Amino acid sequence: MAVYTHLAAEDLAVLIDHYDVGALVSAKGIAEGISNSNWLVETTGRDGSGARFILTMYERRIETSDLPFFLGLLDHLSARGCAVPRTIHDREGAGWREVEGKAVALIEFLPGVSVGRPTPGQAHAVGAALAEAHVAAREFPLHRANALDPAASAASLAQCGAEQLAAIDPALPAAIDLAARVRGDWPGDLPRSVCHTDLFPDNVLMLGDRVGGMIDFYFACDEAMAYDLAVTHAAWSFDKAGARFRPDVGEALVAGYESVRPLEPAERSAMPLLVQGACLRFVASRAEDWLDTPAGALVTRKDPMDFMRRLHFYAGAGDGPFQQ
Amino acid sequence: MAVYTHLAAEDLAVLIDHYDVGALVSAKGIAEGISNSNWLVETTGRDGSGARFILTMYERRIETSDLPFFLGLLDHLSARGCAVPRTIHDREGAGWREVEGKAVALIEFLPGVSVGRPTPGQAHAVGAALAEAHVAAREFPLHRANALDPAASAASLAQCGAEQLAAIDPALPAAIDLAARVRGDWPGDLPRSVCHTDLFPDNVLMLGDRVGGMIDFYFACDEAMAYDLAVTHAAWSFDKAGARFRPDVGEALVAGYESVRPLEPAERSAMPLLVQGACLRFVASRAEDWLDTPAGALVTRKDPMDFMRRLHFYAGAGDGPFQQ
Repeated sequence: MAVYTHLAAEDLAVLIDHYDVGALVSAKGIAEGISNSNWLVETTGRDGSGARFILTMYERRIETSDLPFFLGLLDHLSARGCAVPRTIHDREGAGWREVEGKAVALIEFLPGVSVGRPTPGQAHAVGAALAEAHVAAREFPLHRANALDPAASAASLAQCGAEQLAAIDPALPAAIDLAARVRGDWPGDLPRSVCHTDLFPDNVLMLGDRVGGMIDFYFACDEAMAYDLAVTHAAWSFDKAGARFRPDVGEALVAGYESVRPLEPAERSAMPLLVQGACLRFVASRAEDWLDTPAGALVTRKDPMDFMRRLHFYAGAGDGPFQQ
Repeated sequence: MAVYTHLAAEDLAVLIDHYDVGALVSAKGIAEGISNSNWLVETTGRDGSGARFILTMYERRIETSDLPFFLGLLDHLSARGCAVPRTIHDREGAGWREVEGKAVALIEFLPGVSVGRPTPGQAHAVGAALAEAHVAAREFPLHRANALDPAASAASLAQCGAEQLAAIDPALPAAIDLAARVRGDWPGDLPRSVCHTDLFPDNVLMLGDRVGGMIDFYFACDEAMAYDLAVTHAAWSFDKAGARFRPDVGEALVAGYESVRPLEPAERSAMPLLVQGACLRFVASRAEDWLDTPAGALVTRKDPMDFMRRLHFYAGAGDGPFQQ
């Protein structure tokens, strides 16, 4: 949530000149993205009537070698009518360029706002949009492994160690054994596609009850589609602290998903485990970030306990939230 | 340069409903302002054709009791044709509202970009725009004292102390005596108006060679108009580190100013001292911020030496840069 690099207006104007989008009118650094710098850029547009874009500079955590996957996926999905922004290509057809040694991409701006307290109607729309993307992405020719799968979460938590985890919260070391158990039981044969794997409300632009756009595909990877639904379920169906499950939102999300792509029996019966794996993925990454971030740093650390609470809910709820 | 407060879309929509600007379409937290959170907000507009605004939430350093001054000044200047954004008033006519116990204001969005390396043509336009604001602001009925005048800078540097300043840079303790001398020689009788006192290139939105808008008036106060020109001179006429003076830019700035409001003889002869006072104001505040900011914090500290270099240039240049 920052702009890490200063881009002078002159450099920005030169960059924009490489695209067929008109001349630079305005640029504001925006407080989005944890691994990137982002600007909301306005140009005169191809026909002079104005156009807007998100300019992303890839700062860290993102490998340039992954850009054909991420940016190509946006093109693939938007061409198939999915609610994702297009990648804007430069006059030579390239999906990204280099500025000051860093890769930058120009991406379609989509209107909409990220909701804080989703309604069931909004969750239904998001479920449907996710399923549409899963179906469309099955034909996407590029591949990327999930670096944050249950094995990685288990390893990360074990490496943090019980003592350090307890220093964050006394209830946190329990995640180590839970992650090892979930990893052991993890199903290997569910139907796969390219999955977003991080579809929090922050990453969905809503226009009322309609999905204006799903954004921030920088964790996208080949995964079990039901796992992506599980991540989205854990991210949407609770209050922010994870203290209260919102059954109507969870049900609407799954119903919306199934309105486009019904779950197979194996997927449905795996859901109670998949949601626990989803929670552990965020417990693990948040615990690691927490321990990496000095307490005095002016960055908001996300509390790993928000997802321990969700995990405990799911562990106790069995298949209740996923019954038809 | 951050968004300190999370504002859910639902809360934002409720807030926007209090204004006659149409319905909320989009909102992006923007990385601007050091004491505020800011969002670039898009609405459907009064006539459905769309409108954009900057929503500012006042976080710290800014007293609510100063808001009639800051927001009224924008209205006063824009009504007189100055290049500043208007304050948008709510349906009851209020210039600001409260959200979660904090004051928020909706301000006109102006297009344009902040230049990194101003051209003489741009500096000329900025000088003229500054003079226009000075002339228009003389009739502004509200008043606010300058909390960062030479006496305050001298006191702040003395309080930092030679030892702490030397820890930042061995050349920095010299600022203590320089500030005391500048304070002693400070002229008390130059013509005054309401002044911006922080008109860095970051705070001016340029549309080519034209000033699209002067923004961020949160240091505005009653001051000698020539001092405001001195601040702007120090902020625009050097490379970023203050190592190289750009005489053509400095000359164009003063010429642009005088194309609207010629300096009086007393103002012209005070300029060599006023620019030193301007430099010391930023040396002092940057040194203080530097010592207040932990070295590990993920915030860019501004180097007070950037303005010590400018100060030394001005001290050696006499009235050279300000001869007609």
